Amino acid sequence: MISFRSDYSQGAHPKVLEALISTNEEHTDGYGLDVHCERAAELVRDLIGVPDAHVHMTVGGTPCNVTFIAACLRPYESVIAARTGHAYFHETGAVEATGHRIVTVDGEDGKLTPALIDRAFEEYQDEHTPLPRLVCVSQPTELGTIYSKAELNALFKKCRELDLILYVDGARLGSALTCSANDLSIKELARLCDAFYIGGTKNGALFGEALVILRDELNDHFRWMIKRQCGLLAKGRLIGVQFEALLDGGENSIYYKIAARENVTAEIIRSGLSALGIRFYGNSPTNQVFPILPVSVVRKLEDDFFFYEWAPERDGVIPIRLVTGWGTTTEEAEAFVSAVGSLL
Amino acid sequence: MISFRSDYSQGAHPKVLEALISTNEEHTDGYGLDVHCERAAELVRDLIGVPDAHVHMTVGGTPCNVTFIAACLRPYESVIAARTGHAYFHETGAVEATGHRIVTVDGEDGKLTPALIDRAFEEYQDEHTPLPRLVCVSQPTELGTIYSKAELNALFKKCRELDLILYVDGARLGSALTCSANDLSIKELARLCDAFYIGGTKNGALFGEALVILRDELNDHFRWMIKRQCGLLAKGRLIGVQFEALLDGGENSIYYKIAARENVTAEIIRSGLSALGIRFYGNSPTNQVFPILPVSVVRKLEDDFFFYEWAPERDGVIPIRLVTGWGTTTEEAEAFVSAVGSLL
Amino acid sequence: MISFRSDYSQGAHPKVLEALISTNEEHTDGYGLDVHCERAAELVRDLIGVPDAHVHMTVGGTPCNVTFIAACLRPYESVIAARTGHAYFHETGAVEATGHRIVTVDGEDGKLTPALIDRAFEEYQDEHTPLPRLVCVSQPTELGTIYSKAELNALFKKCRELDLILYVDGARLGSALTCSANDLSIKELARLCDAFYIGGTKNGALFGEALVILRDELNDHFRWMIKRQCGLLAKGRLIGVQFEALLDGGENSIYYKIAARENVTAEIIRSGLSALGIRFYGNSPTNQVFPILPVSVVRKLEDDFFFYEWAPERDGVIPIRLVTGWGTTTEEAEAFVSAVGSLL
Amino acid sequence: MISFRSDYSQGAHPKVLEALISTNEEHTDGYGLDVHCERAAELVRDLIGVPDAHVHMTVGGTPCNVTFIAACLRPYESVIAARTGHAYFHETGAVEATGHRIVTVDGEDGKLTPALIDRAFEEYQDEHTPLPRLVCVSQPTELGTIYSKAELNALFKKCRELDLILYVDGARLGSALTCSANDLSIKELARLCDAFYIGGTKNGALFGEALVILRDELNDHFRWMIKRQCGLLAKGRLIGVQFEALLDGGENSIYYKIAARENVTAEIIRSGLSALGIRFYGNSPTNQVFPILPVSVVRKLEDDFFFYEWAPERDGVIPIRLVTGWGTTTEEAEAFVSAVGSLL
Repeated sequence: MISFRSDYSQGAHPKVLEALISTNEEHTDGYGLDVHCERAAELVRDLIGVPDAHVHMTVGGTPCNVTFIAACLRPYESVIAARTGHAYFHETGAVEATGHRIVTVDGEDGKLTPALIDRAFEEYQDEHTPLPRLVCVSQPTELGTIYSKAELNALFKKCRELDLILYVDGARLGSALTCSANDLSIKELARLCDAFYIGGTKNGALFGEALVILRDELNDHFRWMIKRQCGLLAKGRLIGVQFEALLDGGENSIYYKIAARENVTAEIIRSGLSALGIRFYGNSPTNQVFPILPVSVVRKLEDDFFFYEWAPERDGVIPIRLVTGWGTTTEEAEAFVSAVGSLL
Repeated sequence: MISFRSDYSQGAHPKVLEALISTNEEHTDGYGLDVHCERAAELVRDLIGVPDAHVHMTVGGTPCNVTFIAACLRPYESVIAARTGHAYFHETGAVEATGHRIVTVDGEDGKLTPALIDRAFEEYQDEHTPLPRLVCVSQPTELGTIYSKAELNALFKKCRELDLILYVDGARLGSALTCSANDLSIKELARLCDAFYIGGTKNGALFGEALVILRDELNDHFRWMIKRQCGLLAKGRLIGVQFEALLDGGENSIYYKIAARENVTAEIIRSGLSALGIRFYGNSPTNQVFPILPVSVVRKLEDDFFFYEWAPERDGVIPIRLVTGWGTTTEEAEAFVSAVGSLL
Repeated sequence: MISFRSDYSQGAHPKVLEALISTNEEHTDGYGLDVHCERAAELVRDLIGVPDAHVHMTVGGTPCNVTFIAACLRPYESVIAARTGHAYFHETGAVEATGHRIVTVDGEDGKLTPALIDRAFEEYQDEHTPLPRLVCVSQPTELGTIYSKAELNALFKKCRELDLILYVDGARLGSALTCSANDLSIKELARLCDAFYIGGTKNGALFGEALVILRDELNDHFRWMIKRQCGLLAKGRLIGVQFEALLDGGENSIYYKIAARENVTAEIIRSGLSALGIRFYGNSPTNQVFPILPVSVVRKLEDDFFFYEWAPERDGVIPIRLVTGWGTTTEEAEAFVSAVGSLL
Repeated sequence: MISFRSDYSQGAHPKVLEALISTNEEHTDGYGLDVHCERAAELVRDLIGVPDAHVHMTVGGTPCNVTFIAACLRPYESVIAARTGHAYFHETGAVEATGHRIVTVDGEDGKLTPALIDRAFEEYQDEHTPLPRLVCVSQPTELGTIYSKAELNALFKKCRELDLILYVDGARLGSALTCSANDLSIKELARLCDAFYIGGTKNGALFGEALVILRDELNDHFRWMIKRQCGLLAKGRLIGVQFEALLDGGENSIYYKIAARENVTAEIIRSGLSALGIRFYGNSPTNQVFPILPVSVVRKLEDDFFFYEWAPERDGVIPIRLVTGWGTTTEEAEAFVSAVGSLL
């Protein structure tokens, strides 16, 4: 069996594992107050070119999103997000669990636009309606699509106009940064939002995401928030150690290399299937591929490959989702294309 | 100035006020544990024909909705409601404040259908998504429309099928029960849902809504919930006294008479404007009327009448909302029709 | 039966009721945005001598306390209160329901002191412990005792030193202001705290408390908070109308007269029992009296009087609580003293 | 420098690290639905002798505690815990963040007793007070002390009598199970509570705690709760892999060996200091040692050792806390004793 089910189906990239092994016997302080977390934060600040950015090592994507959102909002404030976005779609109401509404809009290809933000504001009137205060987007989106520099710039401008905080979920940020369709560097990203995170879990780490907060007032007492939201890891240095390994070298780091490689294997599948005449659900240029396949083909592929069906069958076809990870090989990608070719 | 802004712009119906005056000097226990609340509950049970229904006197619509919803749900469970519905649209996120998502669907004419409930379930998958557990509808809806007996029956059946609690917000229940289009008695309503409330505030009371819970397990420790949600009034008997006055006589009570009269004055406006060729926003047969009027007419009407604009101007017309209350007179309703007639 | 069970066992003082009757037919805007609420707020500002104080008409003590506390705190912040205080003792965890801890201290005679606040801070260390941010006291306390001007001044100074918000629950503020032991005027109170409320429910109103916020930043979007916490009454003017009646005339208003009279009847009981050699639980100079009586006497008194037992029997005696209200007569107070006298 | 600051200052025990390395390239499903988590759960069930126990791999102690507590309670219910206990003392109000009060009692030597539970119930009366529903204790306690079999049995009996859920935080359970003063096996523990966790973080794991739920109804939709509380790790198998390594062999597993060794090094310190005439704060027989040392000694020890001061200086002495971990050596323990000896 070959797995394309997710980019978190294997452990850590070997270099990350090595870093954990080589530091294993060290004694450090707990809860992220250690030299590895500090060095990792420094690497992040260098990479994004913001010397005074606040960086926190968080355990995973959901706690990172929820803690930041809950820290930013007063009780009557709400979040704007795409109805297909992860924060709404796949976090079991964890944002609402902190007492805040997510106002959903129907994104185009998974993405928000200034017009959609305006539309969310049509629901807002006065003290009888929650006040939107934060816009949550993903780069790439849950559908693998990416914001161009111009698109993010327009979003950020709209957010400034409406006094909204712009937060970017970067669970697969590496894949966005290194895909051929991308025109947005991480330095530019850091100037076009108020906070974002650099995802580790789906880019070679065992776990961990590096949250970057770009406005001082949003960082106030943030460690209290992490603890209160149950996200302060005792051996916090583990996340720091992993990000040291991932980000050493900046844009030449293994973080970028892992991501680029995920994109290469995804592109093999994408172009291979495309050559076979297969169409796709959405327009992902990143490490998620959503081919729409005949049901009979899908059923046979299940014998040799793991993947998710992404939407219910309709008219005899099903969109499936394939995700490549740090360990996915060229051969595995080609094997999938061949298998489809032989089944058509 | 004549006010059609709301059915809560005046105090109490004279009979309700009299009841408050005549009982004012009595000493009773606080927090709703008094003979008036008990008698009011008994009147409710008689009216709905359910001798063992649980009845609670609550301070207002928002606390009633939120307390019941929060009492029913486990932390990971969510509510299904129309995006135009009051619980989503006009309660400043008070439901989400208790930690629960409202999954919105785009109701037709403000109403939910079994198909829309199924659609809400398309978002539900497994432990990564909140589990819908309660459906919240209003009778009449925020747009003044009503569910027929067949429609509510179909909703309730769908709820039973999906193990959903069906809750009916009856802020203006009287108007629904007494309008000419209605085919659903309160006795039938009480058999086609799990809980509902009989609205007092918009039907002649100073304040107060009588919550009716029709399943024992949903009533467990409910008074603890009311207190915890800040809704236990010290002089709780005030609500009991008002509902005693309102419901004495059952279907011949002033509750029914006030509502019927609200509908009569609304109908004068509706048929009068209709005769003038005016069209309406939605299809309300109750005490809310939503005529679509030329902007110039609206601007002149504002000199003599209070009302809300219900949606932004489009193509030179604006839908406005007129609401009749217990004190609205035939003359006031006719004056509005005449005014429009003279302005067209 | 004569009731001393509470100061909320009867309806409204006749003058308050009259005001409700005389304004009943008026049409006003809802939700507290009306001329009566505005006039009531103006009367409050005059009374306290703070022309720019923010005043909100709230439905009851619990919603007032909880809404203000939740509005002031960031998620990781906590409240300091006496373990015997109302916010901890009798609100079913309504503060914690908003996500905040109450750090309890064992008050002396129900009261906090600067030293007790320091003791609460001994639990606070860093991001592993919630940060105390608001001190909640009552004037008078749950045990009927009052803070002197010097005591409140010391508390406020300590709060300023530790960057704590000082909030005073004034459910029975009238009784404190008008009792013979008091040396603290309402004008002084308004300079020695950050917010307080003037209680209506227990001082002649049907319901309603006037919240006074003395720092602009604590008032930010406060009406959104009231609505989100389910406390925005549709016919909000009802509270305004009552406070207009209560506060007209300032220190010569019926608010002061009602309170003074409650104290007079309480004092009849207190001095009468004292003359009989009865001791008291605590040291209340206000409208609550806590005599410690032999069990046999208590059992017989129950035939003619309503009251609460305040603590379990110990050594053959029980502390009971007697409360006088706006309607309590001199004769009723004397009847109680006589009854005890005849039973000893 | 030698560190006695915590049992989480180093990485994983070598055998645990090996297990992570050897499984690193495997593809598995995410979120704990994998063969390693299943095997680890099976090892837990074997070890405790409860074939149908529910076992969940959780990320850390705080999320484990908070998720279980929030899953058990209805909104108006509260927790009873020692004021010195971890859930109250060191989790930044994370329990209250879910809307529930912790009712604190002053434990004796960190421990609860049936009498203290009764005392907590003295605060409970009716719908005006939160209903205690869960008792949270630690084995060992925050002060290193342990419950004997008889003591836990008495607690459990009291909990059954009052319909309370008994939950045992086992962050350092290994140390309790293997210390010489212990008479309570893990099989017995599993029969004397409703849920507990087997701590990994402080017993040789990188992170992770195995939660054991012993009543079916408390496990209902528990994975939804974990996700909603932000605790569902994408690469969930990491926790399973570690517990497979830790628990293989049951009472002969490295889990027991690591813990026993932690106790041995702690005992070297304890008996060594005792021989020097040093007294201790509390009565810990586990891997935490709390010697009370002269200030001057403490200041000099700081040059060579890391440890926490546990309470403020009083009368010239300070209680400090020393904790031994999986990597603490006999030599390190002896070095500390020698250092103290030379400084007295």
